[in-house]
Amino acid sequence: MISKLITEIKKKNAPIVVGLDPQMGFLPKKLLKDGIREYGESLEAAAAAVFEFNKAIIDATYDLIPAVKPQIAMYEQFGVSGMVAFAQTVEYAKSKGLVVIGDIKRGDIGSTSGAYAIGHIGTIQVGGKTFTPFDEDMVTVNPYLGSDGVKPFIDICKANDRGIFVLVKTSNPSSGEFQDQKVDGRPLYELVGEKVAEWGEDCLETVDGSEYSNVGAVVGATYPEQGRILRKLMPKTYILVPGYGAQGGQGKDLVDFFNPDGLGAIINSSRGIIAAYTKSDYAKFGEEHFADASRQAVLDMLDDVRGALGTK
Amino acid sequence: MISKLITEIKKKNAPIVVGLDPQMGFLPKKLLKDGIREYGESLEAAAAAVFEFNKAIIDATYDLIPAVKPQIAMYEQFGVSGMVAFAQTVEYAKSKGLVVIGDIKRGDIGSTSGAYAIGHIGTIQVGGKTFTPFDEDMVTVNPYLGSDGVKPFIDICKANDRGIFVLVKTSNPSSGEFQDQKVDGRPLYELVGEKVAEWGEDCLETVDGSEYSNVGAVVGATYPEQGRILRKLMPKTYILVPGYGAQGGQGKDLVDFFNPDGLGAIINSSRGIIAAYTKSDYAKFGEEHFADASRQAVLDMLDDVRGALGTK
Repeated sequence: MISKLITEIKKKNAPIVVGLDPQMGFLPKKLLKDGIREYGESLEAAAAAVFEFNKAIIDATYDLIPAVKPQIAMYEQFGVSGMVAFAQTVEYAKSKGLVVIGDIKRGDIGSTSGAYAIGHIGTIQVGGKTFTPFDEDMVTVNPYLGSDGVKPFIDICKANDRGIFVLVKTSNPSSGEFQDQKVDGRPLYELVGEKVAEWGEDCLETVDGSEYSNVGAVVGATYPEQGRILRKLMPKTYILVPGYGAQGGQGKDLVDFFNPDGLGAIINSSRGIIAAYTKSDYAKFGEEHFADASRQAVLDMLDDVRGALGTK
Repeated sequence: MISKLITEIKKKNAPIVVGLDPQMGFLPKKLLKDGIREYGESLEAAAAAVFEFNKAIIDATYDLIPAVKPQIAMYEQFGVSGMVAFAQTVEYAKSKGLVVIGDIKRGDIGSTSGAYAIGHIGTIQVGGKTFTPFDEDMVTVNPYLGSDGVKPFIDICKANDRGIFVLVKTSNPSSGEFQDQKVDGRPLYELVGEKVAEWGEDCLETVDGSEYSNVGAVVGATYPEQGRILRKLMPKTYILVPGYGAQGGQGKDLVDFFNPDGLGAIINSSRGIIAAYTKSDYAKFGEEHFADASRQAVLDMLDDVRGALGTK
């Protein structure tokens, strides 16, 4: 799967991913009104609005970007109906040729991680038929439980040509509380990074001479110095970089997340793209044309990132 | 919420919780056949079988136990249909007076953890109506992202009278890989344990003179020595103890997870109870009477735990 992602990134000259994190406050009033007209004041109504919102943003941006990253929490908050919107979003994005990274941050003891892996990137049999429940291409995974909580995901990556990104150094302000604790003089996130590189060794793929693993890492844009160190520690690991834009990261901070081959990182922006229409820079589009505002925000992000990488 | 859990534990003399983790292999053939007859070979069929399985086990055990702990991964593996079965299970267990601990192990950056908290223990408004999406009483939370990933759950615990259990030292074989790493000479799980105690300080509740927090911890039965240390480090923290039975823990290993007041821990068994009918000890019940086998397994577990605690 990582080779598919890299191929799309190269084709579109776009090492970016759009985070589909539809918080209630981002939904244009018209979409929610339409949902309520059809389903009454209900979770179904909100979920229908979420899917229409995502669909419009995907339609307006899919030719520019290689991937989307729906954050499942933003769907789970609407209960079962939200999960329907999540599944619809995954399916629709894939129908447009996008790689879908499910930002699920799951992780548990072995057999339980196995069930999560089945649900999100695997298959399950009922009677004589086989199903792919949520069917993402890649997912994010939490490493706190150690190897036996991660391995079931890797096994399914191998069996099913999928990928994962393991949390190493997250973008939030308090990520250092445990992740930066020094173990034998080195921060814990370096140990996790080394493990990620090790886990990824036997699922490498090659594109135009560049070799990367289906086991990637998450390192926040808000921590560029740590990104530089981790980049060198995990040379064949693709890094998913959240925290661009709304969380404070900028193109120039991101250069060191990339390898000399120009690959190795994919930068996520969520709010900065999908809620662009609510920002003064894009207010001229108006709420009705929220998807056009998102397209412009993608173009501006690409300009910033390409400028920083010298690939304009 | 912790006072409700403690009250139920005392009333039933049962510091135990039944893990509703319905793996495909545990489902009696008849239930799956019934599901397929109604829904065809489909995820809906499997999910319907899962709910019927849980319902029968709840009916056979609810008078003996204070709580159930559905492991959401085992539902997520069936996609949206599985999430329906999860929601039905939560609702049914609550209708029988049980405290429901959603074993979801979520955790993310602040705003995203907030969305998970809304979805599982909070409320959300659509138009003029307020909804409680999955509506568990308590959930498990992953601490890898630090305070700002945990606080949104605590805020909702306070607003809505709910509870959480934060992963400290998990029951699986590789839990030590990161959790046992020494920070200034002490294992990381002790630091996490101290944080859990700190987070819990302003949501304490009192039952018959015993004071405990709505912020609990998860410590595996498979690590009794660490349990003893953590018990003392977090005196007002309720400990959810998985790993009893199938994972290797036994009643006598669990004594040190409890405080002198006889409270402070609740022991989970999943496979050992719900799949009892598949074990030689309970084979006499037969597959058809799987729920009776589960009831007997609960009685045997209670006998073991009460024996160890001297509360027979």
